[in-house]
Amino acid sequence: MSRFWSPFVNDLVPYVPGEQPKLDNLIKLNTNENPYGPSPRVVEAIRAQLDDSLRLYPAPNADQLKDTIASYYGVTAAEVFVGNGSDEVLAHIFHALFQHGKPVLMPDISYSFYPVYCGLYGIEAQTLPLAEDFSIRPADYRGENGGIIFPNPNAPTGMLMPLAGIEQILQANPDSVVVVDEAYIDFGGETAIALVNRYPNLLVTQTLSKSRSLAGLRVGLAVGHADLIEALERVKNSFNSYPLDRLAIVGAVAAFEDQAYFQQTCQAVINSRDALSQGLQERGFQVLPSAANFVLARHGERDADELAAGLRAQKVIVRHFRAPRIEQFLRITVGTPEQNQALLRALDALL
Amino acid sequence: MSRFWSPFVNDLVPYVPGEQPKLDNLIKLNTNENPYGPSPRVVEAIRAQLDDSLRLYPAPNADQLKDTIASYYGVTAAEVFVGNGSDEVLAHIFHALFQHGKPVLMPDISYSFYPVYCGLYGIEAQTLPLAEDFSIRPADYRGENGGIIFPNPNAPTGMLMPLAGIEQILQANPDSVVVVDEAYIDFGGETAIALVNRYPNLLVTQTLSKSRSLAGLRVGLAVGHADLIEALERVKNSFNSYPLDRLAIVGAVAAFEDQAYFQQTCQAVINSRDALSQGLQERGFQVLPSAANFVLARHGERDADELAAGLRAQKVIVRHFRAPRIEQFLRITVGTPEQNQALLRALDALL
Repeated sequence: MSRFWSPFVNDLVPYVPGEQPKLDNLIKLNTNENPYGPSPRVVEAIRAQLDDSLRLYPAPNADQLKDTIASYYGVTAAEVFVGNGSDEVLAHIFHALFQHGKPVLMPDISYSFYPVYCGLYGIEAQTLPLAEDFSIRPADYRGENGGIIFPNPNAPTGMLMPLAGIEQILQANPDSVVVVDEAYIDFGGETAIALVNRYPNLLVTQTLSKSRSLAGLRVGLAVGHADLIEALERVKNSFNSYPLDRLAIVGAVAAFEDQAYFQQTCQAVINSRDALSQGLQERGFQVLPSAANFVLARHGERDADELAAGLRAQKVIVRHFRAPRIEQFLRITVGTPEQNQALLRALDALL
Repeated sequence: MSRFWSPFVNDLVPYVPGEQPKLDNLIKLNTNENPYGPSPRVVEAIRAQLDDSLRLYPAPNADQLKDTIASYYGVTAAEVFVGNGSDEVLAHIFHALFQHGKPVLMPDISYSFYPVYCGLYGIEAQTLPLAEDFSIRPADYRGENGGIIFPNPNAPTGMLMPLAGIEQILQANPDSVVVVDEAYIDFGGETAIALVNRYPNLLVTQTLSKSRSLAGLRVGLAVGHADLIEALERVKNSFNSYPLDRLAIVGAVAAFEDQAYFQQTCQAVINSRDALSQGLQERGFQVLPSAANFVLARHGERDADELAAGLRAQKVIVRHFRAPRIEQFLRITVGTPEQNQALLRALDALL
């Protein structure tokens, strides 16, 4: 703390991302990265852009990428926003659309960055408890609020809300923006983007970090009514004219263009998830039903902290949130079949 | 405007960056890009990083880059902040260090993004007029304020303030953060980073977009007392854990490591600037003394708007700010000797 700080900085509690360890030969199942690399066409597209043109600013509106996403999802470019990772997109959403002097509603067990954004922009966060089975209850999301946000599938539970639940929330809150954070939607859910035409209060965010294997490139997006996108553009253009660099733009375009690779790697992750869930259940874990590229699992008898430490000693890293209700769960990213086998073997040595 | 917007969005006046035209064979002297490409070592380093590891998140604190910058400038890594272009760095500075309910002081003719940041974070901007010769008068920067910011050299004038002037401002404002925006310092100025050890209220920002030819990669930095950097880190970690992608980190490191290329290209730009200034003066222009990679020049008899349009018709693009006191000036980026000759020939056709 310092007299030079803007006063709110004293009370900020920043987000803590999953560890990015520098050690080699770890089995890293802690930050939900895709076990498969990006499409070879992404690497090719970036390589083709890698020349003296780096001296020039990128296109400030990343039109090529917006057009690609618009065409992919059957919307217009004016309904698409892009940013430097979906974390930046979410930050702009909280700032541009959630500052109404009323609480923003979110699940109690959810992406822990949401309350951090609230702290950053002086917004009250109101958490609503998940049901006993860890599902989100759409009927709870009502009453005066300055906005609503939840991941679908939820993180870190992995559990999916059907579109009917989302529509129920949208209809009960016609005067609030409802943000559906679809970071993990491609691993088994149906995107709510199809609802954008019918609900001017719906904003859907996605990332290229998970299903498109580009966590290292930092590209996220939002799709919604052009009025909502305009608010985001105003804030973005008052913050940083060029959030996406030249390499990220062409890489992201190529990722959306290689549909075959995308489907193949998503399907491989889905297959691995099912095998991993079964392997965990066979070892005495309760595994929440996941539509994401991770599972949240609790052993019937063994302490989660102890298991995480035991795995770590065997160079397998998973994530353990020491948060109410889930402190006995481990969140395990779905790896390749080989990585998942290594995890199960490491567990066998502990159980 | 929409009922869904946070109210402040209605009044936001976003920054308008220089045009990034899509047409080929233009002579683009409008956004102060370096006429030379980045160091070949930058391209090499990015190519070496361009593989399946893009599936992994970058190092959230970009330690490798911070260490490189710290060692380059003889400071500690705790005194270095990095971001997605210096525009993002500046945005975090306004948020983290300038929100004190008092006006932030800045020159009336300066980087036009500063008042935009003020609008974004609800800060009052108080502009102080430049002297008649367009220099910043250090003695004007005093009295109660929530912070002070100016570019050095100033943009769009290109004029340099000696370090003694900066020290005068620092000493007169021991309770305010003084930000020296050194986007153009490498083209003929002396960095204020040498003063950081003596002034805990000094924060120096720089960018890799100009002297290091990496506008397309989006990397900026700040150097100052560790207390100031900590405020920026808190805000950054409450906004986006990973603002720098994996390719930008290694590219930026390589840019700082290739000192020979950096010096050679900076010197080439300086030489071209002197030749360009002389060519403009020979054609009846007043040219402000520039320490940057651009010049601000006014023709004695011809209207600036008309000249800009006439250049454009000949496919030479320069920037014309329709702002008080400089509406008769053109801001011309220093190009290669060939580009500068083409500009002068195009002017000859108009004069």
